[in-house]
Amino acid sequence: MSTNRKSRKPRLWRVDVSLKEGVLDPQGTTIRRALADMGYKNIKEVKSGRFFEIELDGDRAEDAVKTLEEVCRKLLANPVIERYEIKRLK
Amino acid sequence: MSTNRKSRKPRLWRVDVSLKEGVLDPQGTTIRRALADMGYKNIKEVKSGRFFEIELDGDRAEDAVKTLEEVCRKLLANPVIERYEIKRLK
Repeated sequence: MSTNRKSRKPRLWRVDVSLKEGVLDPQGTTIRRALADMGYKNIKEVKSGRFFEIELDGDRAEDAVKTLEEVCRKLLANPVIERYEIKRLK
Repeated sequence: MSTNRKSRKPRLWRVDVSLKEGVLDPQGTTIRRALADMGYKNIKEVKSGRFFEIELDGDRAEDAVKTLEEVCRKLLANPVIERYEIKRLK
């Protein structure tokens, strides 16, 4: 019913979720140790994270960022121990 | 013992691991549905992935990429269903 069709193109965003500085990263540590055991001694540190590619119907960029920040806090990240970063891909 | 100290600075790389095109992404689908139930109807698709930030002792970039490709195939990714992307951060 909307006549405002120009703004309805879906846009692709990317959200990176990773542990805050100082929070233990057992997955990263385990991978680093496994790699050392496999002979990769030159790998000094491994940090793990998750990312999400999200297609969002064409809001204005500011609205999209607001929506994605809400979504990060409510569902994608645990704000107590994790930080998130929102980037527009296209 | 090495006198070749200049090249020993650790470098930071990033590896993105995500499902190949056409492989079902139940985690992404679940998140999209949960967001729809929460009222975020303008989120059309969610794809999930993992990333790793890897500190690697200063090899030449070509050697580092070769090492990281090995590490992806052997440990970080399942090459049957996942693809990986290696990027230098600094």
